[in-house]
Amino acid sequence: MSETPHKDADKRREITEASLKQLGNLIYEQIQNREFPWIMMQSRSTDNIIYDPELRQYILGSRTTRRHARNIRHIRPFTQMVWTAWFARELVSMRKTSTLREVYYSARGQQDIEFSGQPESDNIIIDLEVALNRPREDFGIFPEERSAIFGDLTIEYTVPGYEGRRMNLTDHPDGVMVGPAVTSSEFVETSADKVLVIEKGAMFNRLIEEKAHERFNAILVHTAGQSPRSTRKIIRRLNQQWGLPIYIFTDGDPWGIHIAMVIISGSANAAHLRDLATPEAKWIGVWGTDIIDYKLPTENLTEHDSKRLRELKTDPRYTGEIWQREIDIFMKIGKKAELEAFSRYGLTYIVDEYLPAKLESV
Amino acid sequence: MSETPHKDADKRREITEASLKQLGNLIYEQIQNREFPWIMMQSRSTDNIIYDPELRQYILGSRTTRRHARNIRHIRPFTQMVWTAWFARELVSMRKTSTLREVYYSARGQQDIEFSGQPESDNIIIDLEVALNRPREDFGIFPEERSAIFGDLTIEYTVPGYEGRRMNLTDHPDGVMVGPAVTSSEFVETSADKVLVIEKGAMFNRLIEEKAHERFNAILVHTAGQSPRSTRKIIRRLNQQWGLPIYIFTDGDPWGIHIAMVIISGSANAAHLRDLATPEAKWIGVWGTDIIDYKLPTENLTEHDSKRLRELKTDPRYTGEIWQREIDIFMKIGKKAELEAFSRYGLTYIVDEYLPAKLESV
Repeated sequence: MSETPHKDADKRREITEASLKQLGNLIYEQIQNREFPWIMMQSRSTDNIIYDPELRQYILGSRTTRRHARNIRHIRPFTQMVWTAWFARELVSMRKTSTLREVYYSARGQQDIEFSGQPESDNIIIDLEVALNRPREDFGIFPEERSAIFGDLTIEYTVPGYEGRRMNLTDHPDGVMVGPAVTSSEFVETSADKVLVIEKGAMFNRLIEEKAHERFNAILVHTAGQSPRSTRKIIRRLNQQWGLPIYIFTDGDPWGIHIAMVIISGSANAAHLRDLATPEAKWIGVWGTDIIDYKLPTENLTEHDSKRLRELKTDPRYTGEIWQREIDIFMKIGKKAELEAFSRYGLTYIVDEYLPAKLESV
Repeated sequence: MSETPHKDADKRREITEASLKQLGNLIYEQIQNREFPWIMMQSRSTDNIIYDPELRQYILGSRTTRRHARNIRHIRPFTQMVWTAWFARELVSMRKTSTLREVYYSARGQQDIEFSGQPESDNIIIDLEVALNRPREDFGIFPEERSAIFGDLTIEYTVPGYEGRRMNLTDHPDGVMVGPAVTSSEFVETSADKVLVIEKGAMFNRLIEEKAHERFNAILVHTAGQSPRSTRKIIRRLNQQWGLPIYIFTDGDPWGIHIAMVIISGSANAAHLRDLATPEAKWIGVWGTDIIDYKLPTENLTEHDSKRLRELKTDPRYTGEIWQREIDIFMKIGKKAELEAFSRYGLTYIVDEYLPAKLESV
């Protein structure tokens, strides 16, 4: 499989910069027309977040909201948003990246911009995403979490100083960190025919060591817990652009289940974004069924775990048969199991026995 | 600077395997002599952990202890230790690695080996380190934490399938993950003349993006919080083998201070190990003094922070002038600051102004 490396990244940057400029121009015009400036955006209030069974993800409904400098309660978030847009423009035009935390601290250097804490600044960044209909990664704003990837995929960098340089993701046997450079890279070529997504570093390492990428002809992705958006986007690209089926492998507990679900159907928080969810991806374990069939070492569910399972049971994303069945089993047996639990049968059991059987059956 | 890649890794593996075999032989002999088998080791009880001002790290004192299968209270840890030694031998001879957690779950597959939880199994692994006077990394046992490294350093892999392959650590602009492959690699060549150790991913990314590795001619190391042992060992190798000075840059709070101190002087937990501490390394910030001089955005110290500062104040590792002075300042101003706080002066301030001034002054 191969793809011509068209300069997607450059194009995306141009569009982002244009939309930021447009926002600025709009505000200038409003002021020149002697209006109090305002910004129109889709409402993010809970009653406007709807689960779309067709798209199989949360979306924002049709209600819009106007943030208006005439309204005294809006002045603060309006000003914060304009500053954040300015900061994003700086990042994009200088081709720099920043973490959410750095954005917050950068604002603290400004005399007139006030954030009570990072959550407020994170929230304004989401507003900007909604207003411009673009993910923050396009503005060069990333979270700090790090995930990793490994396998026969050749990428071409687009970050400054590395343009046109290529790397094959088997080059570093500890796994390749997913940061701004991987996220913005182009995918040039792969011989893999599937993607295995793993929640935990220990199992990711195990699969590399057991050459699972060769044995299953797979690209391995490590989410490091709840998958960062950039990693969800990479998973989606591998699925949509390259047609690779995605298999997700998590701890057998409500938190692991939900890590899989967020990759598949997205989160309510990101209801304003597309291109993050991968509805075709499959959660392949650790199931409650696996705990029974493989006699895995377990821990008891805590009260907190049980409460979370009950929440998932009624969540609109969990209507599918497999989810309902497995949630019921976890609740019935009152147990959970970690990925590493398979080590009881030896370190290689998971690649020798479990994964081949699972991939066969789903 | 360059180093002939002698096959250190192979030699280390042979020695490790020999010492594990020796332990097994000893036990066989004892049994054949109709004795209850026993293992002799240095005592790890707190009254045998001593701070050595010469070595500038904690060490174990001269008291030894005998774990004896005749003693009913010793049978459990004795058996656990023999099983762990067997497991380590398997790992070494198959050239595999394992996480601490996988060791625990592997034990759960055994009928007669019982661990009440992972802490008990982690503890027995430390016993094995003490008995054989070798770090668990030599047995192929690693924690799950991940740190990263970046800069002009060429390494040569020794892990199976990659022997003799080289990588330059500037090849991946998101930073190169430190796992078993980097840890066991040989350092072939570098043009760097110093090492900057950074506690946090955001700042590590920032330094890469601002080309700090070129501007300061430095190798950048990201510890991801409290530095894993393997990363401390890498820092020490860069300092001792290559003569590179080490500068550590952490959050300005008691937890950041202690991240620096553990790199410099080690921890009580690892008093039985050498080759982890780097006494010559310098903590360069964020100091309490920096908070004042640079008017950094701060948070108030919590009660928990203050308590920790009082503990550090009387810790034997903290007798040096700079530590006492900075602890006093933090206590006096009652404030702390994060690395990202410098962003208030712009994203590049830290590399344009702060770091050059700091490196000049220490």
